[in-house]
Amino acid sequence: MRKTGKAIITCAVTGSIHTPSMSPYLPVTPSEIAEQAIAAAEAGAAILHLHARDPEDGRPSPDPELYMQFLPRIKQSTDAIVNITTGGAPGFSEEDRMAGPLRASPEMTSLNMGSMNFGFFGLADKFDWKHDWERELMLGSKRFPANHNFALIERIMVELGQGHGTRFEYECYDIGHLYTVKHFADAGLIKPPFLIQGIFGILGGIGADLENFMMFKQTADRLFGDDYMLSCFAVGRPQMKFLAQCALVGGSVRVGLEDSLYISKGELATSNAQQVLKLRTILDALDIEVATPNEAREMLGLKGADAVGF
Amino acid sequence: MRKTGKAIITCAVTGSIHTPSMSPYLPVTPSEIAEQAIAAAEAGAAILHLHARDPEDGRPSPDPELYMQFLPRIKQSTDAIVNITTGGAPGFSEEDRMAGPLRASPEMTSLNMGSMNFGFFGLADKFDWKHDWERELMLGSKRFPANHNFALIERIMVELGQGHGTRFEYECYDIGHLYTVKHFADAGLIKPPFLIQGIFGILGGIGADLENFMMFKQTADRLFGDDYMLSCFAVGRPQMKFLAQCALVGGSVRVGLEDSLYISKGELATSNAQQVLKLRTILDALDIEVATPNEAREMLGLKGADAVGF
Amino acid sequence: MRKTGKAIITCAVTGSIHTPSMSPYLPVTPSEIAEQAIAAAEAGAAILHLHARDPEDGRPSPDPELYMQFLPRIKQSTDAIVNITTGGAPGFSEEDRMAGPLRASPEMTSLNMGSMNFGFFGLADKFDWKHDWERELMLGSKRFPANHNFALIERIMVELGQGHGTRFEYECYDIGHLYTVKHFADAGLIKPPFLIQGIFGILGGIGADLENFMMFKQTADRLFGDDYMLSCFAVGRPQMKFLAQCALVGGSVRVGLEDSLYISKGELATSNAQQVLKLRTILDALDIEVATPNEAREMLGLKGADAVGF
Amino acid sequence: MRKTGKAIITCAVTGSIHTPSMSPYLPVTPSEIAEQAIAAAEAGAAILHLHARDPEDGRPSPDPELYMQFLPRIKQSTDAIVNITTGGAPGFSEEDRMAGPLRASPEMTSLNMGSMNFGFFGLADKFDWKHDWERELMLGSKRFPANHNFALIERIMVELGQGHGTRFEYECYDIGHLYTVKHFADAGLIKPPFLIQGIFGILGGIGADLENFMMFKQTADRLFGDDYMLSCFAVGRPQMKFLAQCALVGGSVRVGLEDSLYISKGELATSNAQQVLKLRTILDALDIEVATPNEAREMLGLKGADAVGF
Ligand SMILES: [Zn+2]
Ligand SMILES: [Zn+2]
Ligand SMILES: [Zn+2]
Ligand SMILES: [Zn+2]
Repeated sequence: MRKTGKAIITCAVTGSIHTPSMSPYLPVTPSEIAEQAIAAAEAGAAILHLHARDPEDGRPSPDPELYMQFLPRIKQSTDAIVNITTGGAPGFSEEDRMAGPLRASPEMTSLNMGSMNFGFFGLADKFDWKHDWERELMLGSKRFPANHNFALIERIMVELGQGHGTRFEYECYDIGHLYTVKHFADAGLIKPPFLIQGIFGILGGIGADLENFMMFKQTADRLFGDDYMLSCFAVGRPQMKFLAQCALVGGSVRVGLEDSLYISKGELATSNAQQVLKLRTILDALDIEVATPNEAREMLGLKGADAVGF
Repeated sequence: MRKTGKAIITCAVTGSIHTPSMSPYLPVTPSEIAEQAIAAAEAGAAILHLHARDPEDGRPSPDPELYMQFLPRIKQSTDAIVNITTGGAPGFSEEDRMAGPLRASPEMTSLNMGSMNFGFFGLADKFDWKHDWERELMLGSKRFPANHNFALIERIMVELGQGHGTRFEYECYDIGHLYTVKHFADAGLIKPPFLIQGIFGILGGIGADLENFMMFKQTADRLFGDDYMLSCFAVGRPQMKFLAQCALVGGSVRVGLEDSLYISKGELATSNAQQVLKLRTILDALDIEVATPNEAREMLGLKGADAVGF
Repeated sequence: MRKTGKAIITCAVTGSIHTPSMSPYLPVTPSEIAEQAIAAAEAGAAILHLHARDPEDGRPSPDPELYMQFLPRIKQSTDAIVNITTGGAPGFSEEDRMAGPLRASPEMTSLNMGSMNFGFFGLADKFDWKHDWERELMLGSKRFPANHNFALIERIMVELGQGHGTRFEYECYDIGHLYTVKHFADAGLIKPPFLIQGIFGILGGIGADLENFMMFKQTADRLFGDDYMLSCFAVGRPQMKFLAQCALVGGSVRVGLEDSLYISKGELATSNAQQVLKLRTILDALDIEVATPNEAREMLGLKGADAVGF
Repeated sequence: MRKTGKAIITCAVTGSIHTPSMSPYLPVTPSEIAEQAIAAAEAGAAILHLHARDPEDGRPSPDPELYMQFLPRIKQSTDAIVNITTGGAPGFSEEDRMAGPLRASPEMTSLNMGSMNFGFFGLADKFDWKHDWERELMLGSKRFPANHNFALIERIMVELGQGHGTRFEYECYDIGHLYTVKHFADAGLIKPPFLIQGIFGILGGIGADLENFMMFKQTADRLFGDDYMLSCFAVGRPQMKFLAQCALVGGSVRVGLEDSLYISKGELATSNAQQVLKLRTILDALDIEVATPNEAREMLGLKGADAVGF
């Protein structure tokens, strides 16, 4: 693992799995997304990981025009790095997933490193749903795997990586995903440093036990040596523990309402910024410094905020 | 890990990824499958893991009648345990995958514990293909993930496990698959002892590094304690090393032309039995005893050879 | 590892390796030791791990009368658990090491689980020494191993453990020390729960890399299952990182000027309490609760403050 | 770990812990030691790790003249590398331990990397002892640690390493010993490649569980990268399993009556060569090639058989 001396905070502002009925604080409209993103950046997030949602009912949307309603506003108010999902949401076509990133040409996008079962159907009966699509989304996760096949991964690397100079947050939900990053690195399609985002606790992926974190890191160390930077998070309750764990070994961290809706046991976070601030309290207590957006740009070799399409 | 004192040898006779153009020794017709299976049992395999193939061109087939052309013959000649795939082959529907097992009602079936990228497209240009379907199969693995979603897994557990008293070879291609086994165990759909089959080296799954074996075992130990038996294999060249590794820690082993076509570097195995015998040489050298079929039945809690549908 | 839900803070107030020339804040006289111990308890330490020193020049002393100058005072002012070293200091005879504990009959003593090289000679030329004995102590560590042989360990278990109902802080400086605890547990000389104190970063013992922490824990899990509680610390600079790490997995923690003289990089801690408070800031940020002395007594099965000899 | 493609077999012919009453096959006289060493070399050992014993009663002896009764004979009959102990035996003075190696100026000596408890007192009541010294040796191991302090290690590195061009078999009985090798490497006293000999199963050191082997290797990988070659063994019953394990990951192996008196469960080995041959059966079964003495010389950077003092 490349030691950088400072932790990069990514804030994943809204995602596409959590839904409006789960928390009134989940940002949904372009305005809400922009406001929470900006506040998260002010709280210390160097990278803003963003999805778009339909402002009407909050469902995930691939519409590039929605992205263009909040991206410029974010850019005006902060120098944080914009990172757009290519994972999209269940049911998105390949074109849907490419549309926003190709339009925005951001400094970074996420890149899921493997197909997998991605099960959150356990939530189906735990909420009063305002919208039918919400429960259907939950139930669908029992039947439909997340499709991040090799051909799509390669397409993203070529069109966004080579075509737009966009660099990636390699989302790895299991050990095998690290080997898939290695496969593409060996094939010459991607260049270091790799920002490996380890994700723990999705049903279908590697579990949120801290033992797994260390195994994950040791595997990445073996595969990539100093050619990668490690970030990680766990979904749901162990979120903050994993952030502390990754920061302890010198890694970076990702926080935000995409990953957990809570600020402490049973208590909803009222904003993304609140989670960022809580994380900063932990990092401060551990004497770990936080990277500014421009420090993160340098560490990650990004093309710069002037080279984006918004 | 439950220590059983003896290693159970599974032989995976033909599978559905290797194709006739890759090796003339790959059994394809019901006769060839029966003969190689019986010879493998005579060489020491307690479990025969079986797929059916179209006798015309060797392509994987879901046809239950094909199974019925070799299963009775195997049963007559050996007391080895029959284990039928539920993974089928790329392109099989859910019904295709269930057809053979439901017809045969075997003591065991395989059960893939998660959807994943399953990439062997690297082979597409390494052989002279006799049949068009062979190269298409290779290339398709770049685009189409293996679909083993939660709903299908549950269906297999209910229809075959509860309905037929069939027990499972839980095929785990990554750490997350262990958590999925745990999910279903916690839900009460399956009972110990669990035969966990760790599979290493598929592009898309956990890699064939021995460090991973130990991580895999430690995770399973943490999740299942003494409620599981461990078997494992790696595909391709590191096959025998992984078998030795798993046997060294007191585990069981799976060998066969489904997993590797070779007997040593660059040399094709001429039969499944040849691989079983090579494996036995290793086990003998390590003073590791091999379980008979009936010992394996007792260790695994199987319903017995009299209770199958063939 | 037994999960207890709360972290027990041990404060090791002065030890016998650090010396007065290294820090003016190191408590040396009975008064200083008592004051700092009491303040540490008020700051949240449930266990006070204590050594005595000669009030004249600060050198480690086995004199039981010195212990009796601060133990009663500590008992009057706090209900914290008193834990007396049996490791003593370089040059102490076996009788020296037993004298204080036998006189005080405390609820706990430390118990070093193995002989080892214990090298701090690197410090010999880094300070201006006020006393000759200080530099000699440093240099001696190159030549003289720490002697904690099996016979002495057994004697402590019999005379203090069985004779006085004293329970132990099992100081483990390497993986082999865990096996030595296991050896004595299997022999029936000690009973669970075992408070395993993992110590990282002594030259001669296991290094202060976080990877080692997880290996250490996994080994202890394998050897002791739920029969042990884990505490840990690292000496010197990585002190707080190891405390955070151990607390993250649900373990307990040890802090204090015996283990590190610093409060942050290059800055001396002005008291033991200051370190305890810094540690509490970390635990608070991680939402980890701290055990009271009486909660710790119950968790550890101690004989109680009324049953001591002071 | 440096991958060398071939396994180096070391045979530790007699040692100083096992005694004549334990096995009639333990070589004791110069003649017996020479004969068994030569036969072990013929069976495939590239390195002969040697101790001297008093021909009268078999007790370990530091007498250089005894070494000179078998070393020349071994040199005449084989080109195997001679490796002489610097660990000596319990009770040896520093001068005792240096005497043989300084006289013989061998290509290699062993070098114990840390003081430790080294307990084999459990054997005291398991044999009918012919000689009083045997039982005393066993019992003494409860009271007297093995003393391999930093000053002695440094002396050996300077006098033998720098003075005689002798290279070392770094005997590491626990994780901390790896850090001690690192300490001296960082200090510039020793140069790569380091032959790290991991020893598992001594009471007082790391236990003979295969999980520990992988932790040990991963730690060494982290500390030394490609600057070390790994060899390992376990004492007693798990001997062959550890040899297979180490060979599986591409490491080297050490066998011999010093490490285990048995050839299989309950059956004494009748010679060192018998153990070498059994090991070769395992290596052959695993398709692992064995290094010749000259290949081993090159891999280890030795001074050559012409540059020794016998
Ligand atoms: Zn996202
Ligand atoms: Zn199969
Ligand atoms: Zn102490
Ligand atoms: Zn030796």
